[in-house]
Order: sequence, then C-alpha cells, then structure tokens
Amino acid sequence: MGLVVQKYGGSSVADAEGIKRVAKRIVEAKKNGNQVVVVVSAMGDTTDELIDLAAQVSPMPAGREFDMLLTAGERISMALLAMAIKNLGHEAQSFTGSQAGVITDSVHNKARIIDVTPGRIRTALDEGNIAIVAGFQGVSADKKDITTLGRGGSDTTAVALAAALDAEVCEIYTDVDGVFTADPRVVKKAKKIDWISFEDMLELAASGSKVLLHRCVEYARRYNIPIHVRSSFSGLQGTWVSSEPIGDKKVEQAIISGVAHDTSEAKITVVGVPDKPGEAAAIFRAIADAQINIDMVVQNVSAASTGLTDISFTLPKTEGRKAIDALERNRPGIGFDSLRYDDQIGKISLVGAGMKTNPGVTAAFFEALSDAGVNIELISTSEIRISVVTRKDDVSEAVRAVHTAFGLDSDTDEAVVYGGTGR
Amino acid sequence: MGLVVQKYGGSSVADAEGIKRVAKRIVEAKKNGNQVVVVVSAMGDTTDELIDLAAQVSPMPAGREFDMLLTAGERISMALLAMAIKNLGHEAQSFTGSQAGVITDSVHNKARIIDVTPGRIRTALDEGNIAIVAGFQGVSADKKDITTLGRGGSDTTAVALAAALDAEVCEIYTDVDGVFTADPRVVKKAKKIDWISFEDMLELAASGSKVLLHRCVEYARRYNIPIHVRSSFSGLQGTWVSSEPIGDKKVEQAIISGVAHDTSEAKITVVGVPDKPGEAAAIFRAIADAQINIDMVVQNVSAASTGLTDISFTLPKTEGRKAIDALERNRPGIGFDSLRYDDQIGKISLVGAGMKTNPGVTAAFFEALSDAGVNIELISTSEIRISVVTRKDDVSEAVRAVHTAFGLDSDTDEAVVYGGTGR
Repeated sequence: MGLVVQKYGGSSVADAEGIKRVAKRIVEAKKNGNQVVVVVSAMGDTTDELIDLAAQVSPMPAGREFDMLLTAGERISMALLAMAIKNLGHEAQSFTGSQAGVITDSVHNKARIIDVTPGRIRTALDEGNIAIVAGFQGVSADKKDITTLGRGGSDTTAVALAAALDAEVCEIYTDVDGVFTADPRVVKKAKKIDWISFEDMLELAASGSKVLLHRCVEYARRYNIPIHVRSSFSGLQGTWVSSEPIGDKKVEQAIISGVAHDTSEAKITVVGVPDKPGEAAAIFRAIADAQINIDMVVQNVSAASTGLTDISFTLPKTEGRKAIDALERNRPGIGFDSLRYDDQIGKISLVGAGMKTNPGVTAAFFEALSDAGVNIELISTSEIRISVVTRKDDVSEAVRAVHTAFGLDSDTDEAVVYGGTGR
Repeated sequence: MGLVVQKYGGSSVADAEGIKRVAKRIVEAKKNGNQVVVVVSAMGDTTDELIDLAAQVSPMPAGREFDMLLTAGERISMALLAMAIKNLGHEAQSFTGSQAGVITDSVHNKARIIDVTPGRIRTALDEGNIAIVAGFQGVSADKKDITTLGRGGSDTTAVALAAALDAEVCEIYTDVDGVFTADPRVVKKAKKIDWISFEDMLELAASGSKVLLHRCVEYARRYNIPIHVRSSFSGLQGTWVSSEPIGDKKVEQAIISGVAHDTSEAKITVVGVPDKPGEAAAIFRAIADAQINIDMVVQNVSAASTGLTDISFTLPKTEGRKAIDALERNRPGIGFDSLRYDDQIGKISLVGAGMKTNPGVTAAFFEALSDAGVNIELISTSEIRISVVTRKDDVSEAVRAVHTAFGLDSDTDEAVVYGGTGR
C-alpha cells in the first residue's frame, strides 16, 4: 500500500461544492489502496478577507498575531474537508500544522520548516484515517508560537510531509492542468509538459513560472520526492517533476523545457561608480544589509577616459523603494553619481538541461529575439538557462517568438485557463 | 498590582470598530495598574456562519472536526484584538485555549474544563503583556484534540482562568448593563441589581435569566471568584456577583433578588401510570438513559377507584421528540395509557435568599398571580426559589404582576436594551 500526499489550493476548495468535489477525489485515492495525507489551503478569498480585517484594526499588525489570524483560514477548510470525507463514509481527521509536527524557525509570516515530526499523522493513517493537514502553517521550535510559511507555503508543507512520511508522490492539485512550456495566457500554443526534471523546474520557477514555487521544488529535490502537478477540476494526468522519468513515463528529456517570463522586476542602475576594487562589493553589501534579494547583475565596461563605470541590477519591484533608500544612505561610502530606476522591464528565460550539450541554443535564442525586433538590455546565464531583460512591452511578443523558434508550439491552439495557486 | 480577567462577548467585538473600542477599554484597565487577561468570543455572527458552512458540507458533522472548525472564530477575534492593543502602544499576545492551558475532557461540542495550567499566560503577564485568550475552547487531556465548551463557554473560560490565576475579579462584558430584577424586555420597570449572591444568581440562571449561565456561576462560586457583569458599551458599573458584597458595596441583601421566566420548556404528562412502587423510577430511568435533563416533576394524587395516576414533568422543548421516543420505546416495561405533550407553557420563578426567613413570600407570590388572573399548573420550590408553570400566553403578565407585588419596580420606566450574550 502506497502513501500519497495530496495538496489542494484555495481555488479548489473555494466553497462547499468545491470541498465536496475534492472530498470525492480524496476518497478515490483511498479506495485505490493508498494511505492518503491531504494538505489544504484556506478557502478561496478567506486569507485576503482576514488581511483586510487586520488592516482595519492596525496599519502594521505584529507578525505573531498576524500568523495567529491567518492560520484560522486553513483551520476552517481542513475541518470542513474532514467532515465532507466522513460524510462519504470514510474516516478522516484534521490536524493543524502544529499537531502535524511541522516545526519552523521563529520568523513570522515567512517561517522556514526546520523539522517535521508527523507522529500523530502516522498514527491516524495506521488507524485507517485519511489525514487532513493545514497547509502554510507550523509551530516555532523555541517559543511554540504559531507561524506561517509565506507565499506558496502549502506546497512546501505538502512536500515536507511527503518527505517525512516517505511518500511515493506529492500531488499538487491546482486550477491548471500542469506546468506548460510557456504561460498559456501569453502563448496560446503552449503545451503541457508531461515530465520535467527538478533542475529545469527550479530554473523555470526562478524565472517567473508560478505553478510551483522555487522553495517547494528545492525541498522536493533535496529529499527526492516526485511531484505531480495536476488539476483538481479535470482529473487529467498533469506534469511530473522528479529526478528521472517515472514508471512508464519513459519520455526523453527535451532539449528545452520551456520559456518563462517575469514582469515583476525592476532595474536599478548605479551611474558613475569609480572603477576600482571594492566598489561593487560596497554596493551589494548595502543592498544585502537591507535584506533585499537581487536577481541579475551587469557591470558595464569602464570608459577609460573617466575611470567611471555603471552597475545595473534587477530586483523585485516591491523592493525598489527600499533599495534606493539603502543606496542613497550609503552614497558617501560607496561614491557614485546618480541612481536610475526603471520598472518598465521584463525578463524572458529559456530553460532546458539540453542546452549544456547543444551549443547553438544561445545563438538561436538571440536570433529569435532579433527577428522579432526585440532589443536586449541585460543578459545572464546558468548552465541550463539563458535570461534576457527587455522592455516590458516587448515581453509577450518575445516569449511567442522564442517558443515558436524552439519548436515548442503545439499543433492546435489550446484554450487553457491559467492562474496562480494562491498559497 | 491586581490581576483582572475580562471577558468580551461576540456582540462587543462584532466588527473592526468594536475591536478597537474594546482594545481601548482593555488598555484603560492596564493603565490603572492591573495585570490584564482578556477572554474573547468569536466576532458577531462568525460562529453561525461556520455552522452554516458545516451544514452545507455534511448533515451530521463529526464532533472533533466541528470543534476544530468553530475554534477558528476565536482565533480571528483574539489575533485582531491583540493587534488593536499593540496599535495603542501596549504589548499584547494572543493564546489559543490549548496554549492558555485550558484542559478539558474529550466530550466534543460540550467539553468540561478539568484543569487550567496557565504557565504561558503567567509568563506573558510577567513580561508586561496583556494576554488575550480564546474563549469557548480547550484541548482534551487524553487525545490532545481541540474541544469546545458549548453554550456560554467563553464565560466559563474567563472564570476558570480567573480562578487559576487567582484574579481579583472576573469582569464579564456584554451588551446589557448587568443583571436585572426581571427581563427588561418584559418588565419596563426592571432595575439593575448592584450586587447579588452566588446562590441567588444560580437560581436566576437556572430559572431562565440568560445574562450568566449556571455553569459559569457555579464555577465562580466554587473558587470564590467575584464576577462583575457590565456593558462593554456604556462603561457603567454593572452587577457584582459574589459571596459577600465587595468593598464599598455595603448593600443589604434584598429579600427578593428578581423574577425570572422561561418559555423554552415543554411539559410531558404520562397518563394512566399504575400507582405502585418503581413506576416513577422506570419512567425517569428511560429519560435519563436518553441523556435528557428534566426540570420540574409532579405526580398527581392517585384516583383510588382506578389505581392509576398521572406523572408530569418539564424539559427543554428541544429534547421533546427524544423524550417521547424514549418513553414509547419503554412503554411495555413501564406500563402507561398515553402521553400528552404540551409546549405552550411558561415558567415564572421568584428568587431570593430572603424568602427563607420571610414566610409570607409564597402566599404573596400566589396572590399576585391570582389577582392577575393567571392559572397555576405546576409548582416547584427550593429554599430560595418558587417556580410555577402557567400558560405561555400568561407569562409576561404574570412576571409584571409579581415584579410589582414584590416592590421591585423602579420609579421610572427605563428603556434598556437586553439581549443574549452568545457564547
């Protein structure tokens, strides 16, 4: 008998009907002879409504209390889901993150899982129950306070439980059919990917694909837990994410897995930086001290006549204000002329392990962009990814051009609904 | 520095404005030099909404999951209240029933508190925090499952915490000004009671007064915790409930504390019971086995000619169906002719320790009812209470007549808003 962890997002349990539909799907898995652990997010807009309430009460809610508030959402959905399953004649018990043994650090609102001790889940399974676990939440190791895991936290809960329980698979049910070769809202001919390696999925997630978050995939890779991303509505096979193709899925690894894009970043250019050792370090120390994660970095070739250079980097738009403030505060120490801020940029990334052994990929990528009349502003590469920054307005055209150039288009236009997975 | 436990019902924290208003009141108590523990119910209609959701998912939700669901309500209100207090510049931490050390038995939906181990609350107080505790909930001693305490549970949480923390007073904030000599919706001239003994309050609660539940008063009496029932809206002094008048409240105990009424009961008459030993026992064993609590019992004088008698008793209307079924099931063993069910009854009770030493009270009570043309169907008495059952339609008139006869009317008609306290 196998052990399966299933995760259902907020859109799958948005109302009583959704909960009953999901309950049937869970019971199916149980009837197929599996032990079933289900991780569930808060219903539909519950979390947003709770955030609104908090905003009405305090402009800056304390982290500990904010987490206490938000975790009420999963408490509701998990209890209702357990009731719905019992109503179908199967035994189910719901568990909070704390009861499920999800131990985290003490960083409220974006805690990290540091241990999982699923003793109560194991007991519930051994007694024949389906175990329903609140996603997105845990309990801090030191203070025993309730914590939340931040965006995409329920996926991470699911993968972490799958690892701790040595599950055969972690099924992530969402409102799309799987991971696609590009965002189907932009590329009508995007194809669903049947299998993708952890490495390629990590690069896609880092490059703007929103179906799975980087952190969840990273966790799955570390513990080698296969993820199956699929729709809770259609019941079709979705996308398998694993180290090697699984079972009868003897698909050959594609040269290119997909094209991702991201328009959530901005570019900051530090103009007139003295071209001497330690300058770049000073700039990025100032940024790091402000707890800001940056993405791409480019240093222009220094103009010999002035001895000055420009350094550009990209970062989430939401961090723009903070970064500018940090740099201005440190201007005397760093020494630069001015700052330029540009949030009208977009990033297009081509991801695929095959590019390691196919030297023509980079050239073909740039040719496709050039043919589409798209100007490249920054370039960065990893072993299995090439990313470029362009004007934001060019992104959709660029993604389509690259998708076609690499033969990723499906034969038919598919109308696929594509959306975020909430948390 | 004193320690005060305050409890706020759902109507006091119905929305963000209510929560901010309550936060100010709490901070006042803290500024007055007290350590403050606050027990809070779910916001306004939250609990009813959750019950509705459960009904949509399952016609008979499991107790464990139902409790998990309902406790989300207090989680929301307590977190918001802590945020609101911190927003006023004071430190506050919220705690679930489990975190606060409220240990219960395992009877879901109506658990009883069996121990309170408020270590975390004590620590929070010692560190200068205001402690906010979820009312109505606890954790079961054996299975560590979340439980709820049933109707009025938040009041009981407050009194239990007050006892465990050796508080000076347990303040129950509600939407009325205190305990009145009668229901002000029925008797316009009802007066607020400044002080009432535990014993009289217990009788009033048992007789239909809904401001405090019997169980909460019983707990307070056992641990001798003074309760102060007051309005969270007006800020006026309310009603003190304690063993002896407190401090400067050197009021003399009134002969009569008040008149309570109750129209939530029904009467069942078992007709044609053989008048021999063991018959009554068989009837009430059948009722007890069905887990039904009964109130008044009367056995008619047997008619010598037939050797048969009638036995009448009252019970909550909600238990009527169950009681009839239980009796019919046991009819062969008990032996009776027929059952009569009557839910058009009302009970009027006069409560006051003074009636022990004032022999005229019972006579005056019956005279008042007679003068008002009210027919008496059943009578029951305790040392400090007389109750009668009448037609339901006569109840209001009877209450007013008795209230006037015992000199309880205030000089002016007061328009007082009076309502239940939810949980």
